[in-house]
Amino acid sequence: MLRFYYAPRTIALASHIALEESGLDYEPIRLDFHAQQQRTAEYLAINPKGRVPSLVTERGVLTETPAILTYIAQIAPQARLSPVGDPFAFAAIQSFMAYLCSTVHPAHAHKTRGARWSDDPAVIEALKVKVPQNMADCCAMIEKEYLKGPWVMGDAFSIADLYLFAIERWLEGDGVDTTRFARLLDHRSRMNDRPAVAKVLPLH
Amino acid sequence: MLRFYYAPRTIALASHIALEESGLDYEPIRLDFHAQQQRTAEYLAINPKGRVPSLVTERGVLTETPAILTYIAQIAPQARLSPVGDPFAFAAIQSFMAYLCSTVHPAHAHKTRGARWSDDPAVIEALKVKVPQNMADCCAMIEKEYLKGPWVMGDAFSIADLYLFAIERWLEGDGVDTTRFARLLDHRSRMNDRPAVAKVLPLH
Repeated sequence: MLRFYYAPRTIALASHIALEESGLDYEPIRLDFHAQQQRTAEYLAINPKGRVPSLVTERGVLTETPAILTYIAQIAPQARLSPVGDPFAFAAIQSFMAYLCSTVHPAHAHKTRGARWSDDPAVIEALKVKVPQNMADCCAMIEKEYLKGPWVMGDAFSIADLYLFAIERWLEGDGVDTTRFARLLDHRSRMNDRPAVAKVLPLH
Repeated sequence: MLRFYYAPRTIALASHIALEESGLDYEPIRLDFHAQQQRTAEYLAINPKGRVPSLVTERGVLTETPAILTYIAQIAPQARLSPVGDPFAFAAIQSFMAYLCSTVHPAHAHKTRGARWSDDPAVIEALKVKVPQNMADCCAMIEKEYLKGPWVMGDAFSIADLYLFAIERWLEGDGVDTTRFARLLDHRSRMNDRPAVAKVLPLH
């Protein structure tokens, strides 16, 4: 059985919902970041990066949200979480997920994880300043270029929606005036209506 | 025919080599970042993010290196740039590429693209300080956890190698003492021996 390591209020939410949507058997294992459980020798043996999510499979461990989402979609094709046999549509989802993990997530991380990029407390504090603007710019880009509606890829729900939803939940905390982004709010609301989301959210 | 937009000394190198390895017909189009050609209205209509690479296909535009590499591998299966029909091996490549685009590339970008995360010149300057350490930490992680050798995924050459190679070329410029990373140097040397690399590198 798959074992899934997550922590509340992290990007692991996306993969957690994907596991619920997939119908696959899995065991969720919660880490307490406040207690630094991601830094124990036991967990670092699973994921040396000390981050979540991690998915332990019978073939080995997978890390990084785009990879875990893609894997779940591929081993549970009946859940229709990703297009099959259409390289362009598949690549379009990969493009969106790569934008989220390479640009949007780092923009968010400068609020609470500035120590990744500087050891100077004043610099770490200063990195919080631009987070609201950067996240709002990302929201504008997503609404204009990616979110086709009602789902990210158009009519077909996919792993792209799960990834976006996890980030949508950070926006107010990141200082974004979400009233400017009605289509993202609408997407978030639509996601909240899904049974898999209702089941997983209380754990996060 | 595919049209491929790139700029020298950027991550577009990985996709450019992939196109050469694939045997696909494509037209390379070079942008001059010093002349801000990535900010022209004409290019922003292709890639509103104002970055490279962009791959224009008959179905639409693809951006983001992991997506473009995956797409090329999928439409040119005879080039064997990615495992076929093995979801775990495929996800393992996606995991590595997601690590590069979400952690390694942003670590590098704090040297010359600090203005993304702060408008304060002193902060932008301060963000350069930790780049050598962060990039060295990434190198250590890649050698220990990802690079199976001789290629990233072991015996099979793949798109993961192209992505890694593009980043390996930045290491000395990022202040990394590469003599500490013999296996990465060995990988870079092996990549330099490939005919597709020899053809593309003079353009970068």
